[in-house]
Amino acid sequence: MSVSDRIKKSMAQGSWVRKMFEEGASLKRRYGEENVFDLSLGNPVMEPPSEFHQELKRLVESSLPGMHRYMENAGYAETRAAVAIQLSLETGIKFTMNDVVMTCGAAGALNVVLKTILNEGDEVIVFAPYFPEYTNYIDNHGGIIRILPTDEQFIPRLDILETTIGARTKAVLINSPNNPSGAVYSEDFIRQLGELLSKKETQYETQIFLLSDEAYRKIIYDGRKYPQVWSHHQQSIVVTSHSKDLALPGERIGYIAVNPTCRQREELVGGLIHCNRTLGFVNAPALMQHIVSRLQSVTVPIDKYQKKRDFLYDHLIEMGYSVMKPRGAFYMFPESPLEDDVAFVRELQSWRVLTVPGRGFGTPGHFRISYCVDDRTLAGSLAGFQKTAEKFNIG
Amino acid sequence: MSVSDRIKKSMAQGSWVRKMFEEGASLKRRYGEENVFDLSLGNPVMEPPSEFHQELKRLVESSLPGMHRYMENAGYAETRAAVAIQLSLETGIKFTMNDVVMTCGAAGALNVVLKTILNEGDEVIVFAPYFPEYTNYIDNHGGIIRILPTDEQFIPRLDILETTIGARTKAVLINSPNNPSGAVYSEDFIRQLGELLSKKETQYETQIFLLSDEAYRKIIYDGRKYPQVWSHHQQSIVVTSHSKDLALPGERIGYIAVNPTCRQREELVGGLIHCNRTLGFVNAPALMQHIVSRLQSVTVPIDKYQKKRDFLYDHLIEMGYSVMKPRGAFYMFPESPLEDDVAFVRELQSWRVLTVPGRGFGTPGHFRISYCVDDRTLAGSLAGFQKTAEKFNIG
Repeated sequence: MSVSDRIKKSMAQGSWVRKMFEEGASLKRRYGEENVFDLSLGNPVMEPPSEFHQELKRLVESSLPGMHRYMENAGYAETRAAVAIQLSLETGIKFTMNDVVMTCGAAGALNVVLKTILNEGDEVIVFAPYFPEYTNYIDNHGGIIRILPTDEQFIPRLDILETTIGARTKAVLINSPNNPSGAVYSEDFIRQLGELLSKKETQYETQIFLLSDEAYRKIIYDGRKYPQVWSHHQQSIVVTSHSKDLALPGERIGYIAVNPTCRQREELVGGLIHCNRTLGFVNAPALMQHIVSRLQSVTVPIDKYQKKRDFLYDHLIEMGYSVMKPRGAFYMFPESPLEDDVAFVRELQSWRVLTVPGRGFGTPGHFRISYCVDDRTLAGSLAGFQKTAEKFNIG
Repeated sequence: MSVSDRIKKSMAQGSWVRKMFEEGASLKRRYGEENVFDLSLGNPVMEPPSEFHQELKRLVESSLPGMHRYMENAGYAETRAAVAIQLSLETGIKFTMNDVVMTCGAAGALNVVLKTILNEGDEVIVFAPYFPEYTNYIDNHGGIIRILPTDEQFIPRLDILETTIGARTKAVLINSPNNPSGAVYSEDFIRQLGELLSKKETQYETQIFLLSDEAYRKIIYDGRKYPQVWSHHQQSIVVTSHSKDLALPGERIGYIAVNPTCRQREELVGGLIHCNRTLGFVNAPALMQHIVSRLQSVTVPIDKYQKKRDFLYDHLIEMGYSVMKPRGAFYMFPESPLEDDVAFVRELQSWRVLTVPGRGFGTPGHFRISYCVDDRTLAGSLAGFQKTAEKFNIG
């Protein structure tokens, strides 16, 4: 009675990431932290780059008056301008500070966008496997989630999307580089997706937002270029954060960027700023805004993640696992050798290796490995993967 | 079409604080910043205390590994424990870290609480004059706001509350020290309020939360003690932040504290942590959590605010304004010499003094002065107050 019915229900459904975290914590108490190989969380072990520490030090020493006060709900003009310049450099498209709203991370950003655009009962389409919090975020603001499948490379099936979009489709939410699959959509795919959305907008006389969650936008491997959404759909909005590229997930600093060519752009950005305030975020944390103003072109060393990917991927393939080689982010999403992915994840647990069942991401029959861990943990997990591979005879 | 109907409506109603801010910005462009006396915003001019800067410096220099990573959604155990110790010291009631959830400010805290407890259509009672964002926060989570009057000292009318509480009343939201009136409720009043709520809980067989917004809890004058809610109602929840007591409004650091004697306390706190995550806050900013762990007993110098209050109050009284002497926070809420408070605020604007009409707080016929400004601004505003007093012959 103290907690509302919908929250009680949402809590009961729980989160598989959370469940695995709790079971892992109990294993760690029993066997000691160093004897459990935790690949269940997307909490990067990497420290922020040296430029971050330098900038933080500089700011703390200068200690300018007013630097911890309220600012405009959209964020500091200086910070918004720095983001706009970086986006312009990356894409060749002209962004200004008026296209950018600073937020409390990408999670905050996504809630602000959904609150702004959704009428009660509007549909948002996502593609499985997907980041499970999307369900909560869409539900928070009266939206209906529609979950569509991807192909074997975890690329959304456009033929199915085409027959699913209707008059109530308000947004298509993509996440590339993808959590949990590591897929990175090609520019060609995004172009086709954009064309489909424009066609459907004409057909239904609606606006359909292409909402691009780019939390991992800078973590792309093998020298690939990041494929941008801007030129492929007018009504596009990007949400992202510096949680991964600057290794600051606890600091909650991110932003929303709106396509400069968006129709009714001014009204939209006004709505985003309004909702940033009224949802209780008020503004992105002040000190972190000051810092990231100067760090827009800085990232953690991506090659370190690539090495971890190669190390784990090569071993898993050798053991007989069926897994797509990730092109970005820091997750792998192998097929579960057992049809029941929860049973398989429990089997890995018995070897003190912690992962998350695919059904936690809307795709049973797989499991997620997070490899943003130290090399010792990664190496230590191999024995468990080997033993389970042997047990289920997949080699 | 790009912004949802409800957000469009909410934006059109606008915020009087915001409107005054924009009109003030235009005056500043015309006359120069130093010639406009802006008493419209609650953005304290005071800097954080020296202990804050020391602690920030210490943390930045030590730069411990992992200090910017994700932590549990409820916040660091160390920070939650520090808050619990401070609350225990202040109240003599035993709090533990399990009663505390760290949040992105009091605004974040309030949204998390409302999301957790409200079923669609549940009622939340507030008392005018009230912080206008309450309307948005309650609406965000499907609640219905019920606005009740206060007496001449801005103390809620319990006789009216008694006849208003019904089976759908989920919470009574109080704010003491109060924005905008500066009222501080007495312990005796809170005791009577608690008794009434308990009686109504029995009558309707419901739980009615006493939700206490204590953003200004440490800003109380004349040596008065802060009256706590805990011993007066079992189902009580406090939301607060360090925006005002440590002058950190831009950093978004606050917390929720739940009465240790709350029925179903564990479920409730579980719900709060869940909603802190699912609303997209994820966690309170990491670095600020580390800092406030050590600053629980520190505040900005309250006597400076008290001097500002005395200076302005004495002058306004002498000029003939009718105004209650604030006992806390940093606002005054005088009667408007004109029945039309908007017209009066515009009159003050013509003397380049910026305030906010009382109707922005649900109480027309008054206007709000924010005196958390520098002494030059405060002194500079006197001529305008004097001229308008003379014009309307109130002396």
